[in-house]
Amino acid sequence: MSQPTPQDVSISTKPAVMDGLKGVVFTESKLSFIDGEKGILKYVGIPIQELAENSTYEETAFLLFHARLPSAAELSAFDAELKKRRAMPSGLTDLLRLYPKDLHPMHALRTAISSLAMFDSSADDTSQSGKLEKALNLTAQTATIIAALFRLQQSLEPVAPRTDLSHAANFLYMLHATEPSPEQARLFDIALILHADHGMNASTFTGIATASTLSDMYSSITSAIGSLKGPLHGGANEAVMDMLALIGTPENAEEFINAKLEKKEKIMGVGHAVYKFFDPRSRVLKEYAEVVANKHGKSVAYSTLEKVEEIVVARLGSRGIYPNVDFYSGVVYSDLGLPKSYFTPIFALSRVAGWTASIIEYTHKNSILRPTANYTGPAEAHWIPLEQR
Amino acid sequence: MSQPTPQDVSISTKPAVMDGLKGVVFTESKLSFIDGEKGILKYVGIPIQELAENSTYEETAFLLFHARLPSAAELSAFDAELKKRRAMPSGLTDLLRLYPKDLHPMHALRTAISSLAMFDSSADDTSQSGKLEKALNLTAQTATIIAALFRLQQSLEPVAPRTDLSHAANFLYMLHATEPSPEQARLFDIALILHADHGMNASTFTGIATASTLSDMYSSITSAIGSLKGPLHGGANEAVMDMLALIGTPENAEEFINAKLEKKEKIMGVGHAVYKFFDPRSRVLKEYAEVVANKHGKSVAYSTLEKVEEIVVARLGSRGIYPNVDFYSGVVYSDLGLPKSYFTPIFALSRVAGWTASIIEYTHKNSILRPTANYTGPAEAHWIPLEQR
Repeated sequence: MSQPTPQDVSISTKPAVMDGLKGVVFTESKLSFIDGEKGILKYVGIPIQELAENSTYEETAFLLFHARLPSAAELSAFDAELKKRRAMPSGLTDLLRLYPKDLHPMHALRTAISSLAMFDSSADDTSQSGKLEKALNLTAQTATIIAALFRLQQSLEPVAPRTDLSHAANFLYMLHATEPSPEQARLFDIALILHADHGMNASTFTGIATASTLSDMYSSITSAIGSLKGPLHGGANEAVMDMLALIGTPENAEEFINAKLEKKEKIMGVGHAVYKFFDPRSRVLKEYAEVVANKHGKSVAYSTLEKVEEIVVARLGSRGIYPNVDFYSGVVYSDLGLPKSYFTPIFALSRVAGWTASIIEYTHKNSILRPTANYTGPAEAHWIPLEQR
Repeated sequence: MSQPTPQDVSISTKPAVMDGLKGVVFTESKLSFIDGEKGILKYVGIPIQELAENSTYEETAFLLFHARLPSAAELSAFDAELKKRRAMPSGLTDLLRLYPKDLHPMHALRTAISSLAMFDSSADDTSQSGKLEKALNLTAQTATIIAALFRLQQSLEPVAPRTDLSHAANFLYMLHATEPSPEQARLFDIALILHADHGMNASTFTGIATASTLSDMYSSITSAIGSLKGPLHGGANEAVMDMLALIGTPENAEEFINAKLEKKEKIMGVGHAVYKFFDPRSRVLKEYAEVVANKHGKSVAYSTLEKVEEIVVARLGSRGIYPNVDFYSGVVYSDLGLPKSYFTPIFALSRVAGWTASIIEYTHKNSILRPTANYTGPAEAHWIPLEQR
C-alpha cells in the first residue's frame, strides 16, 4: 500500500487555542440577555425580576419557545397541551421499576429521557413544528419522570399527575402525594422561572451540538442532561447544603468563613463566571424564600445562609464575589422537602424549556458544530512490528 | 421589586459569528492528523494505510488511549482487559428485552449505553485512571450491546461473546451466531480501524462538551451517540445503499449519474467537508473489499459502486469531489450481512475508541466549554398583564 511522502507535515503558525471557547460567538439568540457586571438577566428582553413577580413557568416556557408573551387564548391552549402530556407512558414506568434504587438520579433521568423516544412514534420528526411538539412533551414529561424516580427509589408507588394544578404545584404533589400550600407552589414556580434559561451555558450548548447534526430532540436533551450532571455545572447547590451542614448554626458562620478565607478555600455558592455583582436570581429567590419562611418557619439552614451572605458580601463584595443562584436554591428546595440528590434533576426540570427553545432557535438556521484542534502529536511515525517494540 | 434601569443595553459592535465554529481551535490533540487537500489521515502520526494493513482494532484503540503503540506485553494485557469486559450485565439484557422491536437502533443504542452506568458501581469515577477504565468498558460493551439489540429486534436470543476471537470477529459471531471467515473478520477489523477516530468531528466534540463539565464517561458517550445519530453525521452510508438500490445494476450507473448532475442533485457518498482528494479511508476499504469480493463473490451493489466511482472521479475529480469513506463502507457492511439500519451503530462501535480517547485527552487539562451568542432580541421589554395583550 502506498505511503504518504514526509513533506505532508509542515511547521506552520498554528491558530490560537480558544480555551473553553470563552468569548467565542457561534450563533445569535433572542432568548437570554445577561449583563454580568450589572447583575442583569432578561428573557426575550424582559427582566427576570418581572417574570418572577408576575409570570408562571408555563408562560415563561411559551416566552422562550416563541420569543414573545402569549395572548390569553394562546397561554390557555399551551397550558392544556402541557397538561395533556403529563401522564407517563406505562411502558416507561415498567423500565423505571428496573432501575437500581441507589442509582444516581441524574443517570436515571438521562436514561429515562433517552427511553422516552421509544414511546413517541414520531420521535425523529425534526421539522420545526415537530421539534416544538417534542419540546412540549419533554417539558411536561421531565417533571413526571423525576417525581416517579424519586418515589420509586424510596419504594413508593409513583403518583399520577393531576391536571387541575400548575406545573410547579403538580410536581410537588406528584413528589409527596400531598398538595403543596399556595406559597410553596409559588416559590417553586419562581425557582423554575429563574432556572429556565441562561444563555449558552454548557448543557444548552451540548444540546445544541447534538441537534446540529440534525439529530432528534430526545437525543439532544439526553445530551444536555449528561452535561448538566457534571459538578462544574449542576450540583453547586448540593455543595452549599454540605457547607451549611458543616457550619451548623448561624453563630458558627463567622468562624467558618474566616477559616475558609484564611486557607484560601472556595466558599460554595458565591462567585460566578458571568456575574460580578449580585446574581439577580439569588435576590429573587431570597425574597420569596423569606415569604415561605415566615409562613412555615425559618429553618436553621436558612438562618445560617442569611448570616453567611452578610459576611461574604462584606468581605468579598468589593472583589466582585457575591452569592449566586445556587446559594439560595438549595435551601429553598430543601425547605420544600426535596432531597439534596434531586437538586440537579430539578435544575433539569426547569432548564428543559431553555434547552428545547435554544435548540429550536439554533436549528432554524442550522450549521453542524465542528471546531478543530491544533495537532501536537508526532509529525511522522510508523507502525512497527510488535517484536521490534 | 426593583427594576433595572434602561441604560443596560447599549448598541455595541458585536463580535463576528463563527458559523459552525468552523476553523475555531478549542484544544490541542495528539490523536488525529488530517490533511484534506492531500487526502491524508494519521493516528498519532501513523498513516491510516499502515494501520489498516498491519494493526488491529484492539491495537489501534490502545494507540488512541495512550498516544503510542503498545509493547507485546501491553497489547496482550489490553486485549485481555477488553475480553474480560465483553459479557453484558444480565440486568441490561432484561432492559433491552423491553425495548420495542421496531425502535430505531440509534435510540436503542443511546439508551442502552446510558443504562450501562447502572451496572458500574464506580460509574462516576472521573479520575484519569477511572476514565480509562470506563473507556475499556464502553469499547468492549458497545459491540455486545449492538449485537444483542440486532438479535432481539429479530426475536432471536442474544449470543454470548467468545473470548477466543478478536473484537471484530467476535462481533460478527455475536451477530450471526456463526464464525466469520478470516477474510470477513479482517475486512471488518479494517473498517473498525478506519472509523476509530477523525479529529474533532461533531460526535467527538459533543462527547467532549459533555465531559467538560466533569460529567462521567457514560454521560459523555451517550451524548456522542445522540450526536452521531443525526443525518449530517452518521447515516451517509445508508444513503449510498439507497442510491445503489435505485441504480440497480452497473449498466444503469452512467444514466443515473448524468441525470443527477444535470439536476444538480447530490450524489451520496462523494465529496467531504475536509477531504478535497480521495478520502484515504475509501481507498483502503475498496482494496480490502475487493479481496473479500474475490473470495465470496462480487455483489451487484459492489460492481455498481465501482462503476459509479469511475464516473464520479472522471466527472467531478477536478472539482475536488471524490468518493468518501461512506461510499464503500455501506457495501462492505452489507456484504458482511449487516442491515442498513445498523450502519450508524457500527460507526459508533468503532468510534467509541476515538470518543473515549479524545475525552481522556481533553479533560486532562479541562476547560468547561461555554461559548456565547450575540443577543438579537428586544433591548427592553416588559411583562404585560394578560388582559392587556
